[in-house]
Amino acid sequence: MRKVRIAVLVSGGGTNLQTLIDAIEKGDINGRIEAVISDHEGAYALERAKKHNIKAVYINRNQLSENLLPELQKLNIELIVLAGFLSILDRELVKAYEGRIINIHPSLIPSFCGKGFYGEKVHKAALDYGVKVSGATVHFVDEGTDSGPIILQESVPVYIEDTIETLAARVLQVEHKLLPAAVGLFCEGRLCIVGRKVNILKKEV
Amino acid sequence: MRKVRIAVLVSGGGTNLQTLIDAIEKGDINGRIEAVISDHEGAYALERAKKHNIKAVYINRNQLSENLLPELQKLNIELIVLAGFLSILDRELVKAYEGRIINIHPSLIPSFCGKGFYGEKVHKAALDYGVKVSGATVHFVDEGTDSGPIILQESVPVYIEDTIETLAARVLQVEHKLLPAAVGLFCEGRLCIVGRKVNILKKEV
Repeated sequence: MRKVRIAVLVSGGGTNLQTLIDAIEKGDINGRIEAVISDHEGAYALERAKKHNIKAVYINRNQLSENLLPELQKLNIELIVLAGFLSILDRELVKAYEGRIINIHPSLIPSFCGKGFYGEKVHKAALDYGVKVSGATVHFVDEGTDSGPIILQESVPVYIEDTIETLAARVLQVEHKLLPAAVGLFCEGRLCIVGRKVNILKKEV
Repeated sequence: MRKVRIAVLVSGGGTNLQTLIDAIEKGDINGRIEAVISDHEGAYALERAKKHNIKAVYINRNQLSENLLPELQKLNIELIVLAGFLSILDRELVKAYEGRIINIHPSLIPSFCGKGFYGEKVHKAALDYGVKVSGATVHFVDEGTDSGPIILQESVPVYIEDTIETLAARVLQVEHKLLPAAVGLFCEGRLCIVGRKVNILKKEV
């Protein structure tokens, strides 16, 4: 089976990227990461890519509009995975890759998502609100912020003694499970978007 | 130990009321339901009350402002439980019973809550959004709608084949667990509100 050509876009350390690399090396995902692209020159994610002989590309934040889509097209990318990517994607790019961009968000969408909710701010908002349950969401990207069709979600408990750090760590464990799972399903052609819902097709036997 | 005097306010059939009655009869809650009050004359919840020798009170929706608080005070009610009560409580009553009104909501607040989200509308919104996880929330009532401090939450999975009915039934099972648990904790004096957070104190040995 031909492998799906993946680009992973990351702004930071890239632990979610690492779980994808590991899952692919184990043969769990029918895909290949053709490039890791970052809007931060010093992002450790770029180092991770090099260590695994994956093309590492830095694109300045101000040049993303101009250079990102051509770079993806040049590499014949079929799936874009946002693994902690903080820049906003152009409307044109989102349209060109409709139903083929996957994002991970560290809350149970629609709670604590949308503009301004990224990274630690998500967990701070959850703790400030006083929820007893949070979680992670993997979803397709549409033209809104965190508003696209949801692929997978899983909850975690929130404890009274939690800090941003302890909650983030608990949610991250779930992220590390859900993101490779969702990318794997995509690469097997098992994700079917129907309106706002994502139907996960049974594995063909 | 003196039993906490409880009033349960219900608009409908009252399956959540029934779980409270059962838990109290089993001795799991250190409380006593002094009255079941409904804003619907034909509510089956009133029948349930009578069957268990609990005072059943009907107050016309238009006379709630005038008659509900005096009725509660006459009975020396210490805890109000909203178990599917569709009328809005007066600001005066909410203030008089601050930290002593418990509500159950059939979603993971802050998702699918607030004005207009009640009963089946909550589940319809969750299904329309395409979430993969929903749940139930028990919270204290403040002057907003579904905005008070959260006591307990628990998630349930949402399946692609779910209808409003199947999702409602799955969430209701969790409601039937969380509401008696929260009322039990309150009656043992183990719920401590700190700002927006509810600290559940350990059981004294």
